[in-house]
Amino acid sequence: MFDPSLAQKAAENLKNLREKKPLIHNITNFVVMNYTANALLACGASPVMAHAAEEVEEMVSFARALVLNIGTLTPYWIDSMLKAGKRANDLNVPIILDPVGSGATKLRTGSAKRLTDELSIGVVRGNASEVLSLAREESKTKGVDSIHSVDEAADAALILAKELNTTLAITGPVDLITDGERITRVSNGHELMGYVTGTGCTATVIIGAFLAVDSDPLSATTTALAYFGLAGEKAAIQAQAPGAFQVAMLDALYTIDEKQMIEGAKIHER
Amino acid sequence: MFDPSLAQKAAENLKNLREKKPLIHNITNFVVMNYTANALLACGASPVMAHAAEEVEEMVSFARALVLNIGTLTPYWIDSMLKAGKRANDLNVPIILDPVGSGATKLRTGSAKRLTDELSIGVVRGNASEVLSLAREESKTKGVDSIHSVDEAADAALILAKELNTTLAITGPVDLITDGERITRVSNGHELMGYVTGTGCTATVIIGAFLAVDSDPLSATTTALAYFGLAGEKAAIQAQAPGAFQVAMLDALYTIDEKQMIEGAKIHER
Amino acid sequence: MFDPSLAQKAAENLKNLREKKPLIHNITNFVVMNYTANALLACGASPVMAHAAEEVEEMVSFARALVLNIGTLTPYWIDSMLKAGKRANDLNVPIILDPVGSGATKLRTGSAKRLTDELSIGVVRGNASEVLSLAREESKTKGVDSIHSVDEAADAALILAKELNTTLAITGPVDLITDGERITRVSNGHELMGYVTGTGCTATVIIGAFLAVDSDPLSATTTALAYFGLAGEKAAIQAQAPGAFQVAMLDALYTIDEKQMIEGAKIHER
Repeated sequence: MFDPSLAQKAAENLKNLREKKPLIHNITNFVVMNYTANALLACGASPVMAHAAEEVEEMVSFARALVLNIGTLTPYWIDSMLKAGKRANDLNVPIILDPVGSGATKLRTGSAKRLTDELSIGVVRGNASEVLSLAREESKTKGVDSIHSVDEAADAALILAKELNTTLAITGPVDLITDGERITRVSNGHELMGYVTGTGCTATVIIGAFLAVDSDPLSATTTALAYFGLAGEKAAIQAQAPGAFQVAMLDALYTIDEKQMIEGAKIHER
Repeated sequence: MFDPSLAQKAAENLKNLREKKPLIHNITNFVVMNYTANALLACGASPVMAHAAEEVEEMVSFARALVLNIGTLTPYWIDSMLKAGKRANDLNVPIILDPVGSGATKLRTGSAKRLTDELSIGVVRGNASEVLSLAREESKTKGVDSIHSVDEAADAALILAKELNTTLAITGPVDLITDGERITRVSNGHELMGYVTGTGCTATVIIGAFLAVDSDPLSATTTALAYFGLAGEKAAIQAQAPGAFQVAMLDALYTIDEKQMIEGAKIHER
Repeated sequence: MFDPSLAQKAAENLKNLREKKPLIHNITNFVVMNYTANALLACGASPVMAHAAEEVEEMVSFARALVLNIGTLTPYWIDSMLKAGKRANDLNVPIILDPVGSGATKLRTGSAKRLTDELSIGVVRGNASEVLSLAREESKTKGVDSIHSVDEAADAALILAKELNTTLAITGPVDLITDGERITRVSNGHELMGYVTGTGCTATVIIGAFLAVDSDPLSATTTALAYFGLAGEKAAIQAQAPGAFQVAMLDALYTIDEKQMIEGAKIHER
């Protein structure tokens, strides 16, 4: 059912984000560093990219959220993510993990599982197969492992979110967000988003930005995905091909106002 | 002489690329990762960037082509390229090499030669001095080493392509493609392409995309360079300066259709 | 006081840059590699990005300026910067340093100090806190360390420039440039520049480009910052949000001519 209170909350979150301009520490992949930094700036946050093992603990202490993205991982980067993540946990800085390609190679699946084992992660965002690749034995026996579309994934995601004690965001044409108890769905977005590299990674950093201003991971994530999808819808009015579209996405993140959020957010509960 | 059958083949290749959406594995340089991923998406392929020695063999096993680009190489990356390349050879996944800066430093020349020595490479694309820097003693004595413009390079390229047992693409105002027996030339393109970083690297990934759907490296490469040059021509109608031009290039890669390929491709034999 | 001779000099520098197309060697951060390469191309220079310890000494020998940027530093990169920098010093290739985040973490502050200790740096560009973090004991006792806004920073910067024997550029709404004797200020720019990642890093590479054609670091830097700020002003006429704005910035760098430089440069002495 459509929930106007979540759209109202999304608009408040957007106002807070732009007022507080939180610093978001990113340890992320080479492909999207520039675009996600620009996306964070466009939505009102302040990005820093830093991955050296020698400095990540200091850097994360200035931040209001930590983004971990394994898109072009090597073992060195995972070590830095663990160091930064442990300090973030000590300082109650929320962490969002993007397990890019988890399920595809042993390095990715193993690294994503290690991060979810050793850190307390606020939100995990990925597509269905990435998120469900994090399943442990218990949830696997309940069938989590065999489901790979967002429509089939609701029950599996509820189980897995409880098992991992985190909030999961499985994004696709309709995004599914669950903390193991509650479920929201977001149906904002546009198909041209699939023709821009790092769209998922960009959704992740925007979730990070809202985690910095909303202590409820479920509503922070729901806000972020509605806002990001709405930016895609607005961009598609300006641009009909992917080059102009990715530029227009940044413009839309910058220009969407609270009124447009309330009117445009397509958020449902359950 | 102008060859309409090659333009027809180019149009068929474009249709196949968009239908099959092949996964292209890239081990490439930091400067162009984002733009080349977006270019691959815009033309209908599916990019993955992955360079960890621990995973490249697994990753390339999912791919239909492997792009190796030494633009910001360090020894670690060359090791990963060799690992991925050997597995690609085992699996008959075609490889395209972009020897960025070969001839300029010992590390680059040595690495490019090592890759062409130890791997079976389907296509090498570079400018004249990069490609001809790959010459061995035998072809050097035939004068390959002293020729560095695309116009003078045809005979040298024929000799070198035979020596290396690969297809060479020497790009410039007119592109020269040869497999050691046949030669094609492509005269599509626009001078603003020289004001966008990584244009050559982008041509390379698009060759990779067509290698995934056309088993003849000569016609795959000819298709790619005509299509990419045509995108430059279309972009220059929209944009007169490099910022807007690089955006319009991505749009053109997305919007060029088979009819435009047949009408616009400037492909000649010999 | 407004100085028309500096605007005239800026126009001459721009003419020289476009005629000479100097090669600029960059050892820089992952976030801005693509954008700064495109900015260098747009203003008429020729960029190369190369960071391998095995090749930086060779590469810098072809270059007319060396850009060192610690934005995503690890110890390996600092070693390469030192190697390239020492060779640059031997060859009289001017160096510009961007101490991104110096003052924020020990690794950054220590690395920036090590680079300024061991190399002869032509220009250092940063915001007030980055630049003033380079202060040694002597200048600290004179109060350099307690000043972190560009307006208060003139006296501190004079002292520090003498101490480091370099030219300092402290950028902000008004840019301050000093070589320890002379001071210039540049008031070109637009607030949307703060919504594009790596704007400061881009100013840095453009200073590098003008160092390659103007042997006076003060006027080279003043030229670069007036030109870059003017590009921001021109871009803001075309674009009202950060996505379109960053594209329009590249276009403006390409299209600004000498007449526009003379008319638009807002350069003051003292």
